[in-house]
Amino acid sequence: MVVPDSPLLAAVSLLSCLHLGYLARRVGRSRTAHKTLPPAVTGPPEFERTHRAHQNCVEFFPLFLVCLWSCGAFFSEAAAVAGGLLYMAARQIYFNGYVKSAKKRLPGFYLTLAALAGLFLLGLTGIVHAILHKYIHL
Amino acid sequence: MVVPDSPLLAAVSLLSCLHLGYLARRVGRSRTAHKTLPPAVTGPPEFERTHRAHQNCVEFFPLFLVCLWSCGAFFSEAAAVAGGLLYMAARQIYFNGYVKSAKKRLPGFYLTLAALAGLFLLGLTGIVHAILHKYIHL
Amino acid sequence: MVVPDSPLLAAVSLLSCLHLGYLARRVGRSRTAHKTLPPAVTGPPEFERTHRAHQNCVEFFPLFLVCLWSCGAFFSEAAAVAGGLLYMAARQIYFNGYVKSAKKRLPGFYLTLAALAGLFLLGLTGIVHAILHKYIHL
Repeated sequence: MVVPDSPLLAAVSLLSCLHLGYLARRVGRSRTAHKTLPPAVTGPPEFERTHRAHQNCVEFFPLFLVCLWSCGAFFSEAAAVAGGLLYMAARQIYFNGYVKSAKKRLPGFYLTLAALAGLFLLGLTGIVHAILHKYIHL
Repeated sequence: MVVPDSPLLAAVSLLSCLHLGYLARRVGRSRTAHKTLPPAVTGPPEFERTHRAHQNCVEFFPLFLVCLWSCGAFFSEAAAVAGGLLYMAARQIYFNGYVKSAKKRLPGFYLTLAALAGLFLLGLTGIVHAILHKYIHL
Repeated sequence: MVVPDSPLLAAVSLLSCLHLGYLARRVGRSRTAHKTLPPAVTGPPEFERTHRAHQNCVEFFPLFLVCLWSCGAFFSEAAAVAGGLLYMAARQIYFNGYVKSAKKRLPGFYLTLAALAGLFLLGLTGIVHAILHKYIHL
């Protein structure tokens, strides 16, 4: 097999898996601390916030991967790596904030959306360029 | 970096991200309308249906992406684009129906499954062909 | 379109979609058996365990795909196929155990983590090697 051309994108993808695994582990530790055994997902407010914070990260993860690789494959690998690292940092800020209070999730959430929108728009630019190049020979 | 060969598949993938983001936003607006603040996921029946509708779209999204790219990469990019657009339309019908009543989710859900089964079967056909070609030189 | 080089990885990915679809169907049948109609996700303990078992599989699915393809594209396709099949078997053991009792989910869960860690570490090895080769010409 030919070694693919984007090891940095793959490294960021693997790192984001590790990060999401770490957040899942935080939910598990919150279960223990608040004596909320599986399969329950309701319990003390702090546990419920921790669980929802993780769920939101899970919901956005495939969207993040699509935007990361669209940006990296069609626009710029360096921009995708930077956007991917920013997204992970934003997710950590979001998670830590949400564990404290529902309101404190917002700064990290807006930063998450900004990183995702950046990856999306750069990816879109590259894809439109590639479509014009391939089908209209511009 | 070499610009990859499938900008239309990437465009459909990005569009499906935008669509899922729009559905997530509908859940957020339903929260406001029904005064159901995060992290709660229980509340008035319409909010719970809206939340579950989005959750179901989230659960299927990675499966959709795998089937979309299997079909597009191993069978036909045009068929994958058509199936992908049909899937998104089906998801919208499903979501709108589910918001109204649990029963009204079914037509959109069956259309969703049909679009997904189409992408899956075409992708499978292409993959089996590629395996036979690569390993048994048929 | 050039037929891509990794039909076995694509076949394992499609198979894992089919498997996850089968587990979703088991949740649907558990709904019927326990008279728990959508959008409810609470009900008799066995239904709640079945629902959570599926949710956990859903949460891990994108991580599984990233690790599978990292291992397959950067390390070895055969190792990725083996790890992917082991992961699916582990998920089935996990699901069957969790349906019976929360405690019985653990052996399958640890096997799931072992398969995932294997794919992750082999993928990481291959990616680090590819980065060193590409940027430092080792």
